[in-house]
Amino acid sequence: MRYHTEYLIIETAQRYEIRDITDEVARIVDAANVVEGMVLVSAMHITASVFVNDHEPGLWSDIMTWLEALAPAKPEYLHHRTGEDNADAHLKRMLLGQQVLLPITKRELDLGPWERVHYGEFDGCRRKRVVVKVMGD
Amino acid sequence: MRYHTEYLIIETAQRYEIRDITDEVARIVDAANVVEGMVLVSAMHITASVFVNDHEPGLWSDIMTWLEALAPAKPEYLHHRTGEDNADAHLKRMLLGQQVLLPITKRELDLGPWERVHYGEFDGCRRKRVVVKVMGD
Amino acid sequence: MRYHTEYLIIETAQRYEIRDITDEVARIVDAANVVEGMVLVSAMHITASVFVNDHEPGLWSDIMTWLEALAPAKPEYLHHRTGEDNADAHLKRMLLGQQVLLPITKRELDLGPWERVHYGEFDGCRRKRVVVKVMGD
Repeated sequence: MRYHTEYLIIETAQRYEIRDITDEVARIVDAANVVEGMVLVSAMHITASVFVNDHEPGLWSDIMTWLEALAPAKPEYLHHRTGEDNADAHLKRMLLGQQVLLPITKRELDLGPWERVHYGEFDGCRRKRVVVKVMGD
Repeated sequence: MRYHTEYLIIETAQRYEIRDITDEVARIVDAANVVEGMVLVSAMHITASVFVNDHEPGLWSDIMTWLEALAPAKPEYLHHRTGEDNADAHLKRMLLGQQVLLPITKRELDLGPWERVHYGEFDGCRRKRVVVKVMGD
Repeated sequence: MRYHTEYLIIETAQRYEIRDITDEVARIVDAANVVEGMVLVSAMHITASVFVNDHEPGLWSDIMTWLEALAPAKPEYLHHRTGEDNADAHLKRMLLGQQVLLPITKRELDLGPWERVHYGEFDGCRRKRVVVKVMGD
């Protein structure tokens, strides 16, 4: 069994941003050099998401609008008594999820035609990490 | 380490539908012939979900009603400028999740008494795939 | 490849409760004695969640308030025709998710600085199980 672990560093220019990271994940899968296996892609920060959806900027805007409606930024959260102001980010990240596990089959990411891996940032403008860990043979 | 990959083909009769796929997953786990391991069950389309919940048609209706309240079908999504009409399906699939990873222990799916694997379709009436990949020994 | 499976027994004092289970998971990872691998932590009951977020009681309250707003307890669910009264718990558990897969690197849980594993109970006051399964070498 082969293991290969890398960490993507992501620093967005905006507080809220969605970014397609499929190519970085595919590069790491290539570097792992396995024929069969799985790759875990997981946000290491609790105000960010990793999810699979369509590479389509209109949809990315729809997702952000929808997240804001379901988990709005507002002062009243109890979490803000700690001095933080990002409780909405903790909730938004739960809606999209923190991680995905992708199959590797015949040396390739085994994805459907429209599946693309995305990073969702809800408290950006600072360095965050995403762990990408391959297990396989 | 043994790997075994199959693809379920699902074509629902309705645009929105929930279907229990536990028996198909269990059959594939049997075919993989591993004593210990894990099986990934993941929707390969970005308008569908794979999730674990109760096999109970009343609850399935509750889930669909609830998804429609939180992520309604409506014309105004920006995604629809591409010609698509299914932005709600992209959002609904995020709420239920795209995949589950199930433990295999002593040759069996290691599930709780009420855990059943379901496929959730939000843009159906066409062929979709679910990847089922077993890793184990 | 080494496999190590344990089951946490959790019985909350309250119907709705969030509990940090990171230390139990770390103990099981230690017991598994692997250098590289992954650990699955998954609720075996369909009215409970396992998720990663901040260890902060104010945020835990915010999460519960938010879940109640998005998936309220109320009599009208169709699921209640079966005699159950916990349809809201089935929905709340979908919002937070049922499981996480955590990387193990150099013998340790490979988590970000604020990542903590939590159990979310939405129909408590009885014994529930969480499966913790390590795969690694």
